[in-house]
Amino acid sequence: MNKQSSKIWFGGDYNPEQWEKDMWPEDIRMFKLAGIDVATLNVFSWALNQPDEITYNFEWLDEIMNKLYENGIYTCLATSTAAHPAWMAKKYPDILRVDFYGRKRKFGGRHNSCPNSTTYNKFAGRMAEKLSERYKDHPAVLMWHVSNEYGGYCYCENCAKNFRVWLKEKYKDLPTLNKAWNTRFWGHTFYEWDEIVPPNDLSEETEGQISDFQGISLDYRRFQSDSLLASYQTEYNSIRKHDSKTPITTNFMGLYPELNYFKWAPYLDVISWDNYPSIGTPVSMTAMTHDLMRGLKSGQPFMLMEQTPSQQNWQPYNSLKRPGVMRLWSYQAVAHGADTVMFFQLRRSIGATEKYHGAVIEHAGHEDTRVFKETAALGEELYQFSDQIVDSTITSKAAIVFDWENRWAIELSSGPTVALDYVEEIHNYYAAFFQQNISVDLISPSEDLSAYDIVVAPVLYMVKEGFADKLKRFTADGGTFITTFFSGIVNENDIVVTGGYPGELKDLLGIWVEEIDALPPEENNTIVLKNKEGFNKKEYTCNILYDIIHVNEAEIVADYGEDFYAGTPVVTKNNYGRGKAWYIGSSADADFISDLVLKLAQEKNIEPSLPPVDDVEVTVREKNNTKIYFILNHSNEKKVIETGNEEKRNLLNGQTIKNSVELFGKDLLILKE
Amino acid sequence: MNKQSSKIWFGGDYNPEQWEKDMWPEDIRMFKLAGIDVATLNVFSWALNQPDEITYNFEWLDEIMNKLYENGIYTCLATSTAAHPAWMAKKYPDILRVDFYGRKRKFGGRHNSCPNSTTYNKFAGRMAEKLSERYKDHPAVLMWHVSNEYGGYCYCENCAKNFRVWLKEKYKDLPTLNKAWNTRFWGHTFYEWDEIVPPNDLSEETEGQISDFQGISLDYRRFQSDSLLASYQTEYNSIRKHDSKTPITTNFMGLYPELNYFKWAPYLDVISWDNYPSIGTPVSMTAMTHDLMRGLKSGQPFMLMEQTPSQQNWQPYNSLKRPGVMRLWSYQAVAHGADTVMFFQLRRSIGATEKYHGAVIEHAGHEDTRVFKETAALGEELYQFSDQIVDSTITSKAAIVFDWENRWAIELSSGPTVALDYVEEIHNYYAAFFQQNISVDLISPSEDLSAYDIVVAPVLYMVKEGFADKLKRFTADGGTFITTFFSGIVNENDIVVTGGYPGELKDLLGIWVEEIDALPPEENNTIVLKNKEGFNKKEYTCNILYDIIHVNEAEIVADYGEDFYAGTPVVTKNNYGRGKAWYIGSSADADFISDLVLKLAQEKNIEPSLPPVDDVEVTVREKNNTKIYFILNHSNEKKVIETGNEEKRNLLNGQTIKNSVELFGKDLLILKE
Amino acid sequence: MNKQSSKIWFGGDYNPEQWEKDMWPEDIRMFKLAGIDVATLNVFSWALNQPDEITYNFEWLDEIMNKLYENGIYTCLATSTAAHPAWMAKKYPDILRVDFYGRKRKFGGRHNSCPNSTTYNKFAGRMAEKLSERYKDHPAVLMWHVSNEYGGYCYCENCAKNFRVWLKEKYKDLPTLNKAWNTRFWGHTFYEWDEIVPPNDLSEETEGQISDFQGISLDYRRFQSDSLLASYQTEYNSIRKHDSKTPITTNFMGLYPELNYFKWAPYLDVISWDNYPSIGTPVSMTAMTHDLMRGLKSGQPFMLMEQTPSQQNWQPYNSLKRPGVMRLWSYQAVAHGADTVMFFQLRRSIGATEKYHGAVIEHAGHEDTRVFKETAALGEELYQFSDQIVDSTITSKAAIVFDWENRWAIELSSGPTVALDYVEEIHNYYAAFFQQNISVDLISPSEDLSAYDIVVAPVLYMVKEGFADKLKRFTADGGTFITTFFSGIVNENDIVVTGGYPGELKDLLGIWVEEIDALPPEENNTIVLKNKEGFNKKEYTCNILYDIIHVNEAEIVADYGEDFYAGTPVVTKNNYGRGKAWYIGSSADADFISDLVLKLAQEKNIEPSLPPVDDVEVTVREKNNTKIYFILNHSNEKKVIETGNEEKRNLLNGQTIKNSVELFGKDLLILKE
Repeated sequence: MNKQSSKIWFGGDYNPEQWEKDMWPEDIRMFKLAGIDVATLNVFSWALNQPDEITYNFEWLDEIMNKLYENGIYTCLATSTAAHPAWMAKKYPDILRVDFYGRKRKFGGRHNSCPNSTTYNKFAGRMAEKLSERYKDHPAVLMWHVSNEYGGYCYCENCAKNFRVWLKEKYKDLPTLNKAWNTRFWGHTFYEWDEIVPPNDLSEETEGQISDFQGISLDYRRFQSDSLLASYQTEYNSIRKHDSKTPITTNFMGLYPELNYFKWAPYLDVISWDNYPSIGTPVSMTAMTHDLMRGLKSGQPFMLMEQTPSQQNWQPYNSLKRPGVMRLWSYQAVAHGADTVMFFQLRRSIGATEKYHGAVIEHAGHEDTRVFKETAALGEELYQFSDQIVDSTITSKAAIVFDWENRWAIELSSGPTVALDYVEEIHNYYAAFFQQNISVDLISPSEDLSAYDIVVAPVLYMVKEGFADKLKRFTADGGTFITTFFSGIVNENDIVVTGGYPGELKDLLGIWVEEIDALPPEENNTIVLKNKEGFNKKEYTCNILYDIIHVNEAEIVADYGEDFYAGTPVVTKNNYGRGKAWYIGSSADADFISDLVLKLAQEKNIEPSLPPVDDVEVTVREKNNTKIYFILNHSNEKKVIETGNEEKRNLLNGQTIKNSVELFGKDLLILKE
Repeated sequence: MNKQSSKIWFGGDYNPEQWEKDMWPEDIRMFKLAGIDVATLNVFSWALNQPDEITYNFEWLDEIMNKLYENGIYTCLATSTAAHPAWMAKKYPDILRVDFYGRKRKFGGRHNSCPNSTTYNKFAGRMAEKLSERYKDHPAVLMWHVSNEYGGYCYCENCAKNFRVWLKEKYKDLPTLNKAWNTRFWGHTFYEWDEIVPPNDLSEETEGQISDFQGISLDYRRFQSDSLLASYQTEYNSIRKHDSKTPITTNFMGLYPELNYFKWAPYLDVISWDNYPSIGTPVSMTAMTHDLMRGLKSGQPFMLMEQTPSQQNWQPYNSLKRPGVMRLWSYQAVAHGADTVMFFQLRRSIGATEKYHGAVIEHAGHEDTRVFKETAALGEELYQFSDQIVDSTITSKAAIVFDWENRWAIELSSGPTVALDYVEEIHNYYAAFFQQNISVDLISPSEDLSAYDIVVAPVLYMVKEGFADKLKRFTADGGTFITTFFSGIVNENDIVVTGGYPGELKDLLGIWVEEIDALPPEENNTIVLKNKEGFNKKEYTCNILYDIIHVNEAEIVADYGEDFYAGTPVVTKNNYGRGKAWYIGSSADADFISDLVLKLAQEKNIEPSLPPVDDVEVTVREKNNTKIYFILNHSNEKKVIETGNEEKRNLLNGQTIKNSVELFGKDLLILKE
Repeated sequence: MNKQSSKIWFGGDYNPEQWEKDMWPEDIRMFKLAGIDVATLNVFSWALNQPDEITYNFEWLDEIMNKLYENGIYTCLATSTAAHPAWMAKKYPDILRVDFYGRKRKFGGRHNSCPNSTTYNKFAGRMAEKLSERYKDHPAVLMWHVSNEYGGYCYCENCAKNFRVWLKEKYKDLPTLNKAWNTRFWGHTFYEWDEIVPPNDLSEETEGQISDFQGISLDYRRFQSDSLLASYQTEYNSIRKHDSKTPITTNFMGLYPELNYFKWAPYLDVISWDNYPSIGTPVSMTAMTHDLMRGLKSGQPFMLMEQTPSQQNWQPYNSLKRPGVMRLWSYQAVAHGADTVMFFQLRRSIGATEKYHGAVIEHAGHEDTRVFKETAALGEELYQFSDQIVDSTITSKAAIVFDWENRWAIELSSGPTVALDYVEEIHNYYAAFFQQNISVDLISPSEDLSAYDIVVAPVLYMVKEGFADKLKRFTADGGTFITTFFSGIVNENDIVVTGGYPGELKDLLGIWVEEIDALPPEENNTIVLKNKEGFNKKEYTCNILYDIIHVNEAEIVADYGEDFYAGTPVVTKNNYGRGKAWYIGSSADADFISDLVLKLAQEKNIEPSLPPVDDVEVTVREKNNTKIYFILNHSNEKKVIETGNEEKRNLLNGQTIKNSVELFGKDLLILKE
């Protein structure tokens, strides 16, 4: 972010067009009261901006941008293309999607345009260009915000045609495609490109992800993710025609399944995302998602583009954020690398879907509300010290591999179990590091591994070209590598690598897996350690899938305790070069993973940033070689934190702390060395 | 009902066309044996009556009507239009509906015609006119029964066109509509009427009621309810061309969600409805539904048009009505204002969907069955004394407001909780009066309130124009008004009234609500009374939604006991003029509501009709200033009832009762002063 | 099976076209190692065999068939028509089905062709003829395997037209059809054939089988089953143009609901089927299914065409077959009449849906796997002694009636309960015989009953023309007949037989049923015996449905113990001629049925083949008047089996056994007298 980046930006989505203009001064008065310095404008105003094919009206936008700027509030300027106008849908029905069930949709909702519609892309690009041309020199423009929360697939005839072109570029000829998809199975050989149709409920797929042909289904996900990316790029390039400097982003949705954000990330100048945990989302899952967003651009700070100040509207039960929680979770984002704290929304709408979504200015309309007061207090706080945080970075010695294409392949698989949840398995390992106050990066398979001591790749089902070699080099060079059951099974086309699982990883791990048992998740087996060394217990449980393992060079760390494979290996360790490669053959319980992670971290001399305390999260950001500790008490109880015998300064109140400190429930500390 | 209204009519649906004529004399013999004096004919005979576009055959109908009439059985004459003929569907597909999923339906089922099809309305109106012309002077015709159980929405192109016309009449111009629907949200501004499409699974809605745009969804429900009403009126007017006197009805379905029966009611000469409780439906819910049906025409007696003599066929588990239950529930209808006891069906069909639905004449085909014997006994009973009941009325000093449009708006809402069930909340308050033997009317917001001492409006989410003022006048004039959480939120277009909830009701209630918390329904909070005065307990529970309340003029009656809003008000009371306005800020448990209702009734000197006994229902009908007590023992155990120290006569057996009486399980008393 | 039928054939599905040819020699080496002597080829190769409308390529098939044959492996030759080529779908969309929801499908999946498509039938027939012409004299061809696992219904316009022709042939004129379907109900009278449309989600049916019109829905199932049969016959006749001798089959799927296998069976030369139990399928259910498949051709030995060597892929949790289980279940098939043991699949595919389905050659690709070793051991075993088993038959003195049309009618019924599961009720009675080691045949209503002493017809809801008389003759001649609640209700058109249930069976049973109560299945009633004679207990439980019974000539065996029909009959027995007819008026618990079956078997002097032991299954096949006992220990524990005091020889190891023998868990004995 290029302007005044001396503090954490504070603000959020603002839709002034939903009210009469005489409301605007009051809004601005309250924004200033709350310390707000950025407003995201123009997210859903396409129909307002462009009432027909040739007319454009931006006067309202000029006026509000100017008014805000005069009051010290910058604009994060959206391109308004996330919901097409009704007139466009009526006149050019090709912009409407065909859904998974094969039905042509009608006007309604949002995020509703076919990404392969030339009409849509023409009008969206034109809108972005018009805006860029008009506001390129406007001093208020802090950031471009393209469209909104890209997502959803289309299955129209036009997408089908574009899919064939995409496939032709990828595979060149049909024999290559037929081999890649293994179309000899079930007699699916294609002789002409036009025989290929999108995989959906009318052809190869059924609801809930399962596909009859993983090859085409995987490629269709890649194609749709690429199609939406191309739409984004159309707008990006249109903006760049007139504005060469202002950073451009679009807001991601964390663990959203449909887009390969790692593939998108290079085309965003800065990552931004919307954080909406559900009731029951563990704080470690939110932390992991922040880390994943930070990992998209290899650690570069990101924007928290949206979060609710209080409640959401689309959950089954939309609880209020308890007092202090909005502040705590705002700092959690910052603690993981965010350089903005932004809300959806600054003023609550009064009609349609989101009127029961929280806002800085509630329906009551005045500042005498809990939500407004908490917001204003946070705004004041950030104003005081956040310059010391901004642009700081996070260093991790451990990394977890996350891959959307691997996730798709696992979800599309028919067998061996419906109980396997890739994100859950990733989180199981993440949570172990999290509890130990050990920072971990979420990385893609194409990330450079040389900076890490430990790399974990849970359920590395799909091993992409070159990745096995990269992991071998990493381990041979002294790294500790951990992977699990159901790994090394297929290549990028979901074609099994024969010769025994885990395929290309066999040498590295020193084992081969003969069979994979699947039992209902309520059943389990035990992990019985050969010796307790470094573990707290002798026996742990595991479930979901059970690899039946043969060791080659590897050492057996633990055996199964039950079933017909009792006494056969479940955990193995292989010395590979100067490093070690671990294989966890079943979905182990939290205690096992926690003990394992602690043991391996100790072996690699990775220390917790501070001694762990239950329900207290600690992260470290660093700037100019100075560490800033974020200590977040997620519990409701008072906790005692050991902060080390060097003096540290609490940025929140300027006090000096040494040895230990008490921290109230839902409260936090930001300590600077 | 105009003919021989000296007794409760007894009979039901009869489909003689499903059998050979030689069966008819035996049917009639058995009808007479059962005391049946009315048969509903011609409900589903359109295809039989009209084999093609120009031919009409009513000879069979002449014959059976005459035969029945000769035997003392009148006809409730249906118009046969509730299922269109197959030939019509084939020749004029515009009569077929398009469903919620956007699919054109094919011939099949019933209640299957598009209400905006000109073809359908032309043929339906013509059929009604033909029947009216033919039977206008037939002495057997007691009642006209238009179509059957109107319901179901259509989303076809023709409906879309008519919807636009309907909108144009309502809003005049698009700017007004855009404002009413808040279309600036998500860029939905309409510039031409033709851009508007019906809200369904292809546009704004998803299954289970939630809508992306409540404004259009609400109006579509109004429009479809009006469209079906217009179809009904077409037939009504066609009948009136020839028959100016015979009352006309159509059978309602109680709490059926899709039609605004209050808007329909003025166009029916008498209300009739079909009572089909499920296993597990509380008797108080059935009672409430009877009272709602009675309320549709401000207390006028209604017809019980259908109930099963024994079992239904469309429940998951179709249990038999236990011995005595059919009689007990028949009298329950009468106890709440019904002047008929009618069944679906007089003879069980032998093929298709309803062959496992109970009937007076079962598949056995003779009178030696439990069901027939119970029916005949009831027929005999009604013959003895029901002249003393017919045309009597019910007087209530308490009323509960019920509003279908409010219900739609609540169900369409995205947030704050999916756990809120409007009917359940209404029933929570109804049940409290019911258990106290205090009669309560179910009324629409447009009902005159002056006759009531207590008015309860649970979850009055939508406050229609003028209704807040009406409630203020009612309270100022000395009435007791009770409303609850999530009230006063929106206007008729589902647009939030800003400035703090409960919007227009703030003054009346003397409070404002800042936030609304929503938690999973298995969690709860406590209601802690400031003092126990008039309540049985100091503490109660509540759940679903939790309003965070600030009092202005109001007095705090109880605080929350838990959570971060512990110690803030949950129940308040405001002196307004000569009356009191109560606000219950959460979904309170049954004990609280029961104690509250009892306390307020006592304050207003509203006495139970008789001292309450568990599982014994008591209602009072009045005629010529004489009270008739219905005492219904819904339990299986013997109960002792205190009947007061004045002598009363049991109409069922002529005995005189004083002070108290024993009543067997499932038995009843009808006592006349 | 005509060639070398001196042993149990051993092999399975093999798809060599999915690999490079250089893999083939290794496959063959391993097949021989495993004792495999038959491979099913060409199941899904249509697109490969026929790349366009006029070109056919069978060279690959020549080559592999020859190679296999040279190595002693015969071919079960499929016609490759179970999945149409993509080019055909594109060029001739009439081959694509319209699904239950009215949607035209696109290319994808398998078993995807409209059975009434003339294009499909033309090309499928032509393919079968080409293959027959080419391979008629090939010495390797052991069997023709037409298509694969026929199933699935189509609802396209072409099916609609063919349905009307099918109806016209059946009913001749519309008045007859109208009467058969009772179309006077809900005004469904048809005046022209073209008014009739297929019953699906757009017309008469809703998901989960319930129909608004059982008549048309029943006939549509018959029609679709017949349509698929006609497709099969097209191929059958095409093969017979050139090959008049080789037997022809298609693989059935056991209890698959959509096809009336009894109607198909005469058109297959030998029955074959695919056995895929789920986790939790009782072994008695598998046994019953084998017996049903054997019953399709009145006891003739059948083929086990497919089973998995280890795991499946399409279950939610695809557990491995535990060690010994594949062998045990293979012999279970043989024990019930199978003369082949065949697998899907010989080599695991590496891409698409079934890559996680077990195979003889796993992804590891070598013979050093548990699955391969178990397979090879079984191959060796079968080679040793299976000549003594092949062509042997099974004799039963008891039979259970199974009827697909009755099953359809029950599932389509609206009321009285959704809890009634026809197959479960059949299995309840089957399991009682199974536990007693008493052989029972599963037969169709058209089977000759004279060979049986006991005939059980659970839930004989639909009584077909002549069947009541057949049952009367059977009983009058001394047989014991048992039927249950909800029997004798309707004729073949699902039209109720009036005059009291069980309709045509009233005389035989000496009772009539007045009402049928339905309660949630978690509730139950008791069966209280008049006297314990022959039973182990005085009281049992029952649930689901409760017939209220009046006895005429019958004797009351037991009364209900609870509810308002306590003290009325629930079990009755009627002396009819020289036999007895039992009626069980509710779904009795397993103990009751077990005791009843044992008692009646003893009365008829039907002895267990060996004394029953828990979890040990015993069957007997007979050949040349010598009995072969199959003794299968399904438990994990050692069991002691009493084998009688005559010496028997264990075919598995040649040892002689007398009096008793110990049998390990999952182990088996095959004893020859």
